[in-house]
Amino acid sequence: MTSAEYPVTRRLATFLCESRFEDLSVLLRHEARRALLNWTGCALGGCTDEAIERSVAALAPFAGPGQATLIGRGERFDAPNASLINAMSANILDYDDTHLRTVIHPSVPVAAALFALVGHRKVCGAQLLHAFVLGVEAECRIGNAVSPGHYARGWHITGTCGVFGAAAAAGKLLHLDAQQMTWALGMAAAQSAGLVEMFGSMSKSLNIGIAARNGLVAALLAKSGFTASETGIEGKFGFANVLAEDPDYAAITGGLGESWELLLDGYKPYPCGAVLHPVLDACLEIRERQAFAADAIASVTLRVNPLAVLRADNPGPRNGMEAKLSLQHGAAVCLLQGAAGVRQFNDDSAADRELGRLRQRIVLEKDAAIKVEAAIVSLLTVDGRRFDARVAHALGSSARPLSDAALEKKFFELAGLGMPDLAAPQVAGLLWRLDELADLSVLMELLAP
Amino acid sequence: MTSAEYPVTRRLATFLCESRFEDLSVLLRHEARRALLNWTGCALGGCTDEAIERSVAALAPFAGPGQATLIGRGERFDAPNASLINAMSANILDYDDTHLRTVIHPSVPVAAALFALVGHRKVCGAQLLHAFVLGVEAECRIGNAVSPGHYARGWHITGTCGVFGAAAAAGKLLHLDAQQMTWALGMAAAQSAGLVEMFGSMSKSLNIGIAARNGLVAALLAKSGFTASETGIEGKFGFANVLAEDPDYAAITGGLGESWELLLDGYKPYPCGAVLHPVLDACLEIRERQAFAADAIASVTLRVNPLAVLRADNPGPRNGMEAKLSLQHGAAVCLLQGAAGVRQFNDDSAADRELGRLRQRIVLEKDAAIKVEAAIVSLLTVDGRRFDARVAHALGSSARPLSDAALEKKFFELAGLGMPDLAAPQVAGLLWRLDELADLSVLMELLAP
Repeated sequence: MTSAEYPVTRRLATFLCESRFEDLSVLLRHEARRALLNWTGCALGGCTDEAIERSVAALAPFAGPGQATLIGRGERFDAPNASLINAMSANILDYDDTHLRTVIHPSVPVAAALFALVGHRKVCGAQLLHAFVLGVEAECRIGNAVSPGHYARGWHITGTCGVFGAAAAAGKLLHLDAQQMTWALGMAAAQSAGLVEMFGSMSKSLNIGIAARNGLVAALLAKSGFTASETGIEGKFGFANVLAEDPDYAAITGGLGESWELLLDGYKPYPCGAVLHPVLDACLEIRERQAFAADAIASVTLRVNPLAVLRADNPGPRNGMEAKLSLQHGAAVCLLQGAAGVRQFNDDSAADRELGRLRQRIVLEKDAAIKVEAAIVSLLTVDGRRFDARVAHALGSSARPLSDAALEKKFFELAGLGMPDLAAPQVAGLLWRLDELADLSVLMELLAP
Repeated sequence: MTSAEYPVTRRLATFLCESRFEDLSVLLRHEARRALLNWTGCALGGCTDEAIERSVAALAPFAGPGQATLIGRGERFDAPNASLINAMSANILDYDDTHLRTVIHPSVPVAAALFALVGHRKVCGAQLLHAFVLGVEAECRIGNAVSPGHYARGWHITGTCGVFGAAAAAGKLLHLDAQQMTWALGMAAAQSAGLVEMFGSMSKSLNIGIAARNGLVAALLAKSGFTASETGIEGKFGFANVLAEDPDYAAITGGLGESWELLLDGYKPYPCGAVLHPVLDACLEIRERQAFAADAIASVTLRVNPLAVLRADNPGPRNGMEAKLSLQHGAAVCLLQGAAGVRQFNDDSAADRELGRLRQRIVLEKDAAIKVEAAIVSLLTVDGRRFDARVAHALGSSARPLSDAALEKKFFELAGLGMPDLAAPQVAGLLWRLDELADLSVLMELLAP
């Protein structure tokens, strides 16, 4: 299949340009509002994290005109730099959303690119919501085309595919024509980056921050006529052939406008890697039946999808960031503390000795027959009792979604964590009717102290 | 070989931090001055190209404080954005330098990151020259470790490896300690990007521009304590394993400080892809023996290294950017016009009908026994005569280097093209004694109108 026979990039670009807000179903619009409420809460919750403090301090001397709100913070940055920071804020707690088929956290780079443009030009809510849905669509479809090999190889797929989402979304908001959108997607391909190796360090979020900024810059360059390859995705030396094996282009161009990937999005009930979640559900269920003293537990076996082991087999996390990707740590906090909140995944929790001892008695078993959103947990006590729990769909996955009320509760919790002064009910109210707002600058002003 | 046994990133970082200016030989310092003279000329020559005009227009509304000169131009940008633009200016004419073993254009991202810092902090010439040599060293050694498979796969190696060079160089100028330098190299890995698919469009230079900016930002973030993986290069999911096959880590860490890759750098005598150069030498040699009317040439056969065919087999370039990567076009201009300058590789030249007809009669033959810097050209005339030329080392390759005088002539030509008002002899004089200058801000001021 040559690029000339199958112009994937151009077909996708044309769809993005031709899509109308009216094409979005009521259900899809509501899912977009849920995703944006969740994203905003995550950005508020993460905005004072040490990673954000350090990156803001590093970039402030170079930032441009204060077009854009750094969510939850006092500084204002130029739009590209703001998109970088806000995407990192929204990801740093690992509390974001997950498109499980690809394990992309789709909202993070896309919403960050869009909200950063609000101070640069007048943006109404319907425009932003529409561009958001399209950005997520481009991002997840490209992810589908290269899954599962791409992420398994070591590419941080939210970074590598997120840049396409950010470019598509920003390009839609900037009214790119099909030629410009094709270039923007090409420049996204040229900038596609992000390595799993960064997991456990602040640069895990950098992988995603740069996706937001680079996608936004791609759209801005394309708008001014800066050219790129027109086959950035499918060309012989394009994204799919260079960063993946045997891409499935039909996953990108088939049924565009008929099916929507955002409807498969899920929102995390726990601030840690999505592959931990079914294990946490199972351990919390066991703990609800029976509280254990640490010494009473002889061993715990976690049967999980191989991807979970590949990403999160870590019996000795050295800090909170590593704890967020430790199946053993996640199981231990649920069993001993009956909770899996922000405090269970911070540096102190990672250093806790009792948790550390229990982590050593937790065994992982790979099972390809178990889906990523599923897990089977067996606990043996020192006095010979056995407790089992089986989770088919993790809480927060699209098969078992968080309710609107649960999402709003999560939003309030995160706002309280990062920006206690926020008029949280007012902001939540605005986000629940986002597509009715004529000018989003009011919202963005509320999101800064 | 696990990362724990072989800490490649940390070893390289430690070398970069411990290196002293006094360790550089007189020869190496002189080569650095030659490279920087060539880089500055290229940036001047390219600074008014349409790609630069469009990117400056796109980014100006978002640029930060005017810390840094856009070489040859009136605007001043923040350091990261300036490094992006200056790297693109220095590459856009395809007149830069080439490390032939990897086909990296080493100076482009490294010098751009460094010169952009001059307005942000006081920088003396010796510091900059030292950081430049080290940046090129990191960049080319990492390139060596993944060559030839990485570039052949479709990675634009000046982008993917240039980001390490820019991070290393900027990190040296910012006095990073070994821990911070390890993080900076990790963040370079996280941002490593750039696709060959962009060749023939403005985004070929974007691949390199972002390497400069991303490397600089990596160093700035590391300086403020933003963390990354400590095994960004060699980790299981690090740069070498994800973007290459069977990396040769000894090429990175073996003999550090004993051999220097900059001594293998060459400077282009022709503004087009390096793989064209031996063909141009051969065709100019034939043309010097005999001038031909276009209709008198029956056929021309170019025997070249397979990489040249992979990168530059294009009988129908649609514009100047594509002509720069067309072996057929390069041969045609040399044979018909006896020249291969900037005017031979612009849009008008690409559209010339007579050249277009001759390009169709030029045949490529791959020969793995021919090195990248070599070529054999055979021309048959319609009246049955045959002309052969054989080039073992292209002019400008390290085996047949441009003289200092030829480099200076090239600098004057390029300055005249992009910034006719430049005090070119004065600037060249400063660059020839760069490491004696106490403050480079004087030089940067001269480089703007």
